[in-house]
Amino acid sequence: MNRFISKSEIEEFEKIFRINLINSITGIKPANLIGTRSTQGSNLAIFSSVVHMGSNPPLIGMISRPSGEVERHTFTNIEKTGYYTINHLKVDDHRSGHYTSAKFSNQISEFDACGFTEYYSASFFAPYVAESSLSIGMRYLEAIPIKQNGTLLILGEVEEIRLNGAELEPDGSLNLESITSTGISGLDTYYRLQKVAKHPFARVKDM
Amino acid sequence: MNRFISKSEIEEFEKIFRINLINSITGIKPANLIGTRSTQGSNLAIFSSVVHMGSNPPLIGMISRPSGEVERHTFTNIEKTGYYTINHLKVDDHRSGHYTSAKFSNQISEFDACGFTEYYSASFFAPYVAESSLSIGMRYLEAIPIKQNGTLLILGEVEEIRLNGAELEPDGSLNLESITSTGISGLDTYYRLQKVAKHPFARVKDM
Repeated sequence: MNRFISKSEIEEFEKIFRINLINSITGIKPANLIGTRSTQGSNLAIFSSVVHMGSNPPLIGMISRPSGEVERHTFTNIEKTGYYTINHLKVDDHRSGHYTSAKFSNQISEFDACGFTEYYSASFFAPYVAESSLSIGMRYLEAIPIKQNGTLLILGEVEEIRLNGAELEPDGSLNLESITSTGISGLDTYYRLQKVAKHPFARVKDM
Repeated sequence: MNRFISKSEIEEFEKIFRINLINSITGIKPANLIGTRSTQGSNLAIFSSVVHMGSNPPLIGMISRPSGEVERHTFTNIEKTGYYTINHLKVDDHRSGHYTSAKFSNQISEFDACGFTEYYSASFFAPYVAESSLSIGMRYLEAIPIKQNGTLLILGEVEEIRLNGAELEPDGSLNLESITSTGISGLDTYYRLQKVAKHPFARVKDM
């Protein structure tokens, strides 16, 4: 039943096969749309690498690919303006969300091209996705370079949270099934979330 | 319909409420069991912060909380031995997986206490979870300190992949629904994954 794939086999896989495999093995990833703005207009891009970094202060990270490779409008805008939004993709919007990853020119806003609506709060610079049930207004802190592969860990702090139909549970948590948040595996596969269980804080004596 | 929670409101929330909220807002997270070994025996702990860092070389990150706070057996073992495993939690094992987060003493293996089975491959030092359908043997590279909150980004390279019933798709990707991988939100809520769609590489002309 057990099959092992060695490091040298991984290295020898055809490039796209290897990318699909390595992007899949970490498990489910959150589908978030990152909203930014520049003098040329707004930008929207799907990211699956958003990661919780800590609650106090409320810090969130995400991984950006090497900037040399292709134009990275999202990181350029974040670095220039200092602000961005993280917006949960609703599962029924999976196709539109996926197409924000196409290489639109800098003059085209993915909001318009992919059918999302910009929404601005009274106090925040970057555009929210009106359609998202849960969004986060982020202030950029720094980009930590990962020397092994030239990627960046973009670090930011939560400035505000936008609830659009989402209700917090009495303990402050969110039910991701009821707000129809989306999971991604690899580069292209989208999942609906079905809540199975919520457990109490784990104590040895209850095991 | 729109409700905004400001930074000062977040700061004033009761501590557990704030932790639950901030841990939930990034969206779905992968449920992975991290297997390590020391001279005192094996260790198993659930992590929801595993993140894809790049495909070539195949790099994976995860966030470890400040080591001063409480004993961090997982990171101590990784640092001492250089090896660890990442194992997808099967959704039907959500309760056992959750209880690996209880504060067992260093003399107790969470494998035994929580009902998982250690499995060793011919060539790899750290214990796999026999029950997982997909596991990754990891070689530790470095721990990047996040100065804003004292956490660590633990960086490692994929050494081998263990498939136990999991089949790769023809393009190298994985169907996380069919291998019953699990999603987590916040600190305690578990989700089943339901595949909705797989899209082609996004091109502007197809939009």
